[in-house]
Amino acid sequence: MAGPVAHSEQYKVIGTRPIRHDGIDKVVGRAKYGADYSAPAMLHGKILRSPHAHARIKSINAERALRMPGVRAVITHRDFAPLTGEVELQYGGETPFDAYFYTLNLLAKDKVLYHGHAVAAVAAVSPHLAEEALGLIEVQYEELPPVLDLIDAMKPEAPILLSEVRAQDDPNRSTNVASHFQFRRGDLERGFRAADYIVEHVFGTTMVHQGYIEPHNALAIYQPDGHVTVYCSTQGPFEIRMMCSKILGMDAGSIKVVPAEIGGGFGAKNYAYLEPLALLLSKKTGHPVKMVMTRTEVLRATGPTSGSKIKVKMGATRTGTITAAEVWMAFEAGAFPGSQVGVACITGLAPYTIPNFQVDGYDVLVSKPKVQPYRAPGAGNAALGVESVIDELAQRCGIDPMDFRLKNAVKEGSPTVAGPAFKRIGYIEVCEAIRDSPHYKSSLNGRNRGRGVATGFWINTGMESTATVNIHSDGTASLVTGSVDIGGTRAATAMCAAEVLGLRAEDVRPSVADTDSNGFTDITGGSRVAFATGLAAYQAAQDAVRQLKERAAKLWEISPNDVDWIDGKAVSKKNGVAPMSLKDLAKKLSRTGGPITGRANVHPTGVGPTFAACLVDVEVDPETGKVDILRCTMALDAGKAIHPSYVEGQMQGGASQGIGWALNEEYVFDKRGVMLNASFLDYRMPTCLDLPLIDAIVVEVPNPGHPYGVRGVAEVPIVPPPAAVANAVSHAIGVRVTQLPISPSNLFKLIRSARQ
Amino acid sequence: MAGPVAHSEQYKVIGTRPIRHDGIDKVVGRAKYGADYSAPAMLHGKILRSPHAHARIKSINAERALRMPGVRAVITHRDFAPLTGEVELQYGGETPFDAYFYTLNLLAKDKVLYHGHAVAAVAAVSPHLAEEALGLIEVQYEELPPVLDLIDAMKPEAPILLSEVRAQDDPNRSTNVASHFQFRRGDLERGFRAADYIVEHVFGTTMVHQGYIEPHNALAIYQPDGHVTVYCSTQGPFEIRMMCSKILGMDAGSIKVVPAEIGGGFGAKNYAYLEPLALLLSKKTGHPVKMVMTRTEVLRATGPTSGSKIKVKMGATRTGTITAAEVWMAFEAGAFPGSQVGVACITGLAPYTIPNFQVDGYDVLVSKPKVQPYRAPGAGNAALGVESVIDELAQRCGIDPMDFRLKNAVKEGSPTVAGPAFKRIGYIEVCEAIRDSPHYKSSLNGRNRGRGVATGFWINTGMESTATVNIHSDGTASLVTGSVDIGGTRAATAMCAAEVLGLRAEDVRPSVADTDSNGFTDITGGSRVAFATGLAAYQAAQDAVRQLKERAAKLWEISPNDVDWIDGKAVSKKNGVAPMSLKDLAKKLSRTGGPITGRANVHPTGVGPTFAACLVDVEVDPETGKVDILRCTMALDAGKAIHPSYVEGQMQGGASQGIGWALNEEYVFDKRGVMLNASFLDYRMPTCLDLPLIDAIVVEVPNPGHPYGVRGVAEVPIVPPPAAVANAVSHAIGVRVTQLPISPSNLFKLIRSARQ
Repeated sequence: MAGPVAHSEQYKVIGTRPIRHDGIDKVVGRAKYGADYSAPAMLHGKILRSPHAHARIKSINAERALRMPGVRAVITHRDFAPLTGEVELQYGGETPFDAYFYTLNLLAKDKVLYHGHAVAAVAAVSPHLAEEALGLIEVQYEELPPVLDLIDAMKPEAPILLSEVRAQDDPNRSTNVASHFQFRRGDLERGFRAADYIVEHVFGTTMVHQGYIEPHNALAIYQPDGHVTVYCSTQGPFEIRMMCSKILGMDAGSIKVVPAEIGGGFGAKNYAYLEPLALLLSKKTGHPVKMVMTRTEVLRATGPTSGSKIKVKMGATRTGTITAAEVWMAFEAGAFPGSQVGVACITGLAPYTIPNFQVDGYDVLVSKPKVQPYRAPGAGNAALGVESVIDELAQRCGIDPMDFRLKNAVKEGSPTVAGPAFKRIGYIEVCEAIRDSPHYKSSLNGRNRGRGVATGFWINTGMESTATVNIHSDGTASLVTGSVDIGGTRAATAMCAAEVLGLRAEDVRPSVADTDSNGFTDITGGSRVAFATGLAAYQAAQDAVRQLKERAAKLWEISPNDVDWIDGKAVSKKNGVAPMSLKDLAKKLSRTGGPITGRANVHPTGVGPTFAACLVDVEVDPETGKVDILRCTMALDAGKAIHPSYVEGQMQGGASQGIGWALNEEYVFDKRGVMLNASFLDYRMPTCLDLPLIDAIVVEVPNPGHPYGVRGVAEVPIVPPPAAVANAVSHAIGVRVTQLPISPSNLFKLIRSARQ
Repeated sequence: MAGPVAHSEQYKVIGTRPIRHDGIDKVVGRAKYGADYSAPAMLHGKILRSPHAHARIKSINAERALRMPGVRAVITHRDFAPLTGEVELQYGGETPFDAYFYTLNLLAKDKVLYHGHAVAAVAAVSPHLAEEALGLIEVQYEELPPVLDLIDAMKPEAPILLSEVRAQDDPNRSTNVASHFQFRRGDLERGFRAADYIVEHVFGTTMVHQGYIEPHNALAIYQPDGHVTVYCSTQGPFEIRMMCSKILGMDAGSIKVVPAEIGGGFGAKNYAYLEPLALLLSKKTGHPVKMVMTRTEVLRATGPTSGSKIKVKMGATRTGTITAAEVWMAFEAGAFPGSQVGVACITGLAPYTIPNFQVDGYDVLVSKPKVQPYRAPGAGNAALGVESVIDELAQRCGIDPMDFRLKNAVKEGSPTVAGPAFKRIGYIEVCEAIRDSPHYKSSLNGRNRGRGVATGFWINTGMESTATVNIHSDGTASLVTGSVDIGGTRAATAMCAAEVLGLRAEDVRPSVADTDSNGFTDITGGSRVAFATGLAAYQAAQDAVRQLKERAAKLWEISPNDVDWIDGKAVSKKNGVAPMSLKDLAKKLSRTGGPITGRANVHPTGVGPTFAACLVDVEVDPETGKVDILRCTMALDAGKAIHPSYVEGQMQGGASQGIGWALNEEYVFDKRGVMLNASFLDYRMPTCLDLPLIDAIVVEVPNPGHPYGVRGVAEVPIVPPPAAVANAVSHAIGVRVTQLPISPSNLFKLIRSARQ
C-alpha cells in the first residue's frame, strides 16, 4: 500500500495517521446511535405499508386500531397540512425541496405507488402493540397494474403512475418520463465518420441498496410551545430540520435535530422517512415518539439507487483517438421523480477529451421505491457503459487499455462534459499509478481468469459548513462542526485545525453539534466534509491564531503584525524575545482579555473533482458462474490525503460496494412488484470472505482550490469497480458482459448462450 | 409588584417577560439532571465516611470488601497521584486551586477532620452492593478531641486540626486560624470620640446549608486512551474539569465535562466531591462509574456556609452621622482553610460613608465540613451585625432607619471599604424605593408585632465567558454558551442577543454546551452570568450583525459602512433601497458566502456592584417563640432588569433563604461533632406555607460598565433579610436579637430571660 507521494514534508499533521478521536467509543459500544436514544413516557411508532405496488386507496379506517388498548394515535396523509397540488420546487433558504411529492412518499394519499409504500402510522405504548395495531387498520385498495420495467414505463401506452408528472414538451400530457437531460458537443455524425472502429453496447443494471448497517430511526419530542427535538441517524441534521419544517409547516428554528452516530448512509440518509411521522405522532399524543425500521422496511421502503439502461456507442481512430461518443441512459426514479441521471450524464465521458458527443439521460417513474443517491450517484452506471466500450475499443485498436485512456485523457484546461474547463486534475497521474503498479505489471496466469481495468470520475461538492475552535487553558483545543462523522471526518477536520495551531491531532478534540449548537452546515455527502468542513476548521483555527498573535503582541507590547505563528509558537519578528508556545500563551489568556474562540463559515468554490481507477483480476467458475476476485488495486487522486488511512478506507469500502454491485446485489421483484429478497440473507452483499485485501494507491495532485490541496475522496472509489469487474469477467470468458449483477445464474446463462 | 422604572422604552426585548426556553422541559420532567445519565456496563460508587469528627486513621483494610461478589474496586487517598505536602496555590491557567487540601477533603489521608469525612470509595455492580461493601471495609481510628466552637478553636491551647496551617506571624507555629484579613481607614479612636451614641453588640450565626434540592452526582467514563467524559450537576463545568485535571494529574483537554441541568447550587456546586472519585474508580475498573449522594451525605459532607461570630461597634453623632465603626468577624472554615470571611470584610460597611473604621476577619478551622460559598457568601453574616447596630443607632438618634441610612449612604465617588471609589451605584435609589413603598408607608398595628429594615451590598463578579450566535435560514438564531442555567440565564442571555439582532426572545434558541463544545466559561456564580455571559451573547450577536451588514452590502453593491442595522433590518444609508429583514437576508446567506456565526469571548472589567434592601413585618408568639413573617418587601438595584420576572424570582428566592437562615436553619451538632439533624425533615427550611408572597421592587440605576446597564442580581437578595428579620423581631419583643436562628427555642429563651 503506497503512502502519500507528495507534499507531506511540508506538514506536521496533515498526511499522518493518528487514531480517530471517536474510535474507542465505537469499538466498546458506547457511541450512541439513533436507536439508543429514548425519553420518559415515550411511545413507539410503527408504519402500515402497502401490500400492492400500484393501487388506488379507496378508504382507510383506523377505528378498530384506535380502540385497541395501548394505542395512542394513528396518522395518515390527511394529517399533513394541505400542500399545493402542483409540482413545486420550494426554496427553503437552504436547499431546493419538493414538499409535495415528499409527503406523498411519507404517507400515501390517494394511491400507493410501490409495495411497502407507507399508508398509515400508529403510536402505541410498546412497539409490539403498535405492530399489532397495524393489523386492525382497514384499508380498501383498488389494484392497478404496476409498471416494473424501465423501458416499458417510457412507452406512451404505459399506465401512468403520477398524473402530476407532465411531458416536458406537452404540459397537458402525463408521462412516466419525469425529466430529460442532454449534453452535446461538436458534430456526432462527423465524429463517427472519422472513426476507424465503432463499438456499441446496451448495458443494464438493477436497483441496488446502499446496505448501511443501521436502519433508519427517529425519536421526536414535540413540546406544547411548538418547539421540537428530533434525534435521528442522518447525514444531514440541518437537512432533516429543513424537511420537517417544510413538510409540517413549522419554522426551521423551532426544530432542533440532534444527529446520532450514524451506522452508514452512503447518500441515502439525507431523506426523512420517519422524522416527520414521529414528530406528527408526538404532536398528536403529547408524548415523545420513537420509530425504528426493520431491515425489510429499509430494503422495501427507503431509497435504493436506480436500476438503469445505458446505451453507449463510441468511435476511435486506428491509433486510439476517440472521435465520437453517444450515450443514452434511462434511470429508474422509483415512485417519484428524482433519480441521479442528470449528474450521471456529466460523469461517464468526463475522463476523455472527445470532440463530438451527445449524452441523453431520462428519469423514469416505475412502481418501485423512490430512489436515493448512492455514493457518486449515477456515475457507476454511466462508467459501466463507457468504460466497457473503452475497454473494447482499446482491444480493437490493439492498444493497452491504460495507454488508450492516457491518449485521450483530460487534463488541466480540458473542457468538462458540461462545458467549463477543468482546473488542475489528476486523471493522468491516476492512470499512470495503475499502469506503473506492481499489480498491472504482474502477469495473470491460469484458465478462466481475466483482468479488467476501468476509471471513474466524480464531481465532488463544496456546500456550506461552520466550524468553531476553542483554545483550552492547557494549550489544547476543541473543534465543533455540524458534520456527522461517517468516514473519519472528526479526525480529518481536527487534523486541519491541528496543523494550523501547531498541535498534535490528539490535542484537538472534535465534536459534532446539533442544529441549535452550531451554525448551518450542509449534509455529510458529496465527498465534501474533509474538503469543506475541513476548510472551515482550517479557517476557524486561523481565526484563533490571529487572536493568539494579538495576545502575544499585547504581552510583548509590540504590534500584532510583528508576530508570526510558527510550529505552535508565537514568534516575534523583533529581536530578543523568546518564542511563546501555545501552551504558555493559553495560560495567559485570562489576563490578556479572556478565552479565545475562532470561527469560520465557508461556502467554498474551489471544489476539486477527482478520478479513480480500478484494476481487478477475476477467476470464473464456468460450471457455476461464480466469480472470485483474485486481486484488486485502486488508485485515486486525493489531492492531498489528510489522513491516508481513511482515504484508503474509503477506497477499500467503495471498491467493496462496487464489487458487490457488480457481482451479486440486486432487487428481485416478482410480477406484482414485491421485492422477494428483502433481508440481508437474501440480498447478497459481499463479506470479507468474498474479497481480497484491496490495495489502495493514494495519488496526490493538489486541488488548487484548497489550502492543503484536498479533494473529496469518499464517492469516486465506487465508480470504476463495476466496469473493471465486468471487463475482467469479459476477458475471462471471452464474451462482453453488459448486465449487472454478474451473479452465478446470470453469468452461467451468458456462458451457456455464448457456447451455443 | 413594581416593574422596571427606567429605560425600558429604549429596548424591544430587554425588560420584557418571555417564557423561558427551558421551561416546558423542566415542568414536564424531561430535563436531564445529573442522576438521569447512565452508560452501558456502568458501575455504582458509594463512599465510606468517618464516624468521628476528629481522629487519626491507623489503617484501612479493604480486602473483605474486595472479595465480595459484585465489588469491582475500592479506592482510598493512596490512589491519588502524590502531591506536595506544602500548602501550595497552583495556577491552573484558569483559577487558583489548592489541590493538596482538596484531595485531603475528597478522601482523608492520615486524619479524618469531620464526621462524614470520606475515607474510601467502592465501585460495585449495583448501588446496594456498593453500600453493603462499605460495611466490609475495616478502618482503625485513634480518636482525637473535636474542635467545634469557633472561639475555642482560635485559642492557642486548642487541639490543632491541620498541622500544615501555620500562623501568619510565625511559620513554625501551627494554628487553627488559617487567615486574618484587615481593612481600615482614618482614626478609629478619634471617630468614636466624635460620636454622641455608640452601640456595640456581638452577633452569632450557625452553620447553614444551601439546601439545593438536587444532591451531588457524577458519572465518569474513563477511556483507555486517557480521555474522560464526566456528567455531573455543577455550576462550573470548566471548574470541575480543572479540578479533576489538577487532582488526577491529567491534561484539562483530555477531560470533557457535560453539565447536566442543575437542581440548585447557590455557590456550593463549584466544588468536585464525586467527580474525581468516580473518575478514579472508572479508570481502575474500566467501566463507567456513577455516584449519587444521599441527602444525609449532602448535609454532612458537602460545603455548608460558615457559622460566625461578629462583633460590631459603631458610633454616630446626635444628628445621625456615622463617625466610626469597628467590626470583628470570625468565620468557621470547617476542616480546611477557606471561608468567605475575606469578602465579608468588604461588604458589611459598604453601604456607608464612614471616615474611621477597622474591619478584622478570621478564617478558623473547626471539626465540621469544609464550608463553601452560599449566595453572596459572608455578606449576610456581616450585614446581620452592621445592620442591627445601624438600626439601634438610628433608634438612639430618633431618626427613621431609612433616613439614617440615606444620610450616610455611599454614592458615585464614595470610597469602597477596600479603597477604590464606587462608580455609579444605586444604594440611595434602593433606600428611597423602600422608604417610598406602600409597605413602608403602611402602619403595623397589633401586639407582638415588629417591623424591621436592613440593607445589603454585594460586589458581583465578571470573569470569563464565551458565546456563539448562529443565524438560521429562517432568520432565527441560536446561542451557545457555557453557562449552566440556574436562574433563567438561558432566557436572559438569549434576550441580550435577541435585542441586538432585532428578534423576539423566542427566536433565539439558547443551549448550554459541554467543555468540548464551547470556549472557556467561568462558573455560574458571583451573579455574573446575566452580566458577563449576557455581554458575550450581546457581543456575539453584534459580530453576527456586522457580518449581516456585509452581506446586505454585497447584495446592494455598496460599502458595509453604508449599512445600518435597525430593528432587525439591514437599512441602507443610501437612498432608494428598501430595508431587508433578517428573515429575508437569512435566505440569501448561502449565495453571499455561506452561513454566519458570531462569536465573542469576554473578560469584562465593568462589573456593577449592587445593593438591596428588605422591609419585613413579623408577629411573635411570646408563648412559643414562633415568628410569623407577615409581610416582606425587597428592593434591589438591577442596573437594568433583562427579564424582570427572573430578577423578581431571585429577590424572592434570596429573601426566602435569608428568612430561613434568620428563623430556623442551623446545623445542630452533638458534643462529638455529629450533625443531629441531617435530613430535610429535621433541617428546617421554609416552605411556601411559611412565607408570604414577597414583594419585589426592581430599581434600575444602569451600570455604566455594561451596554444594557446590567448588574448581577442573584446574590444580594439574601444579604438584608436576616438582619431585617432580626430588627423586626427585636422591635416586636423589645430586646435586641443577636443570635441566629431566631428559632422558637432560642427566641423563647431570649424572651424569658428578658422578662426576668
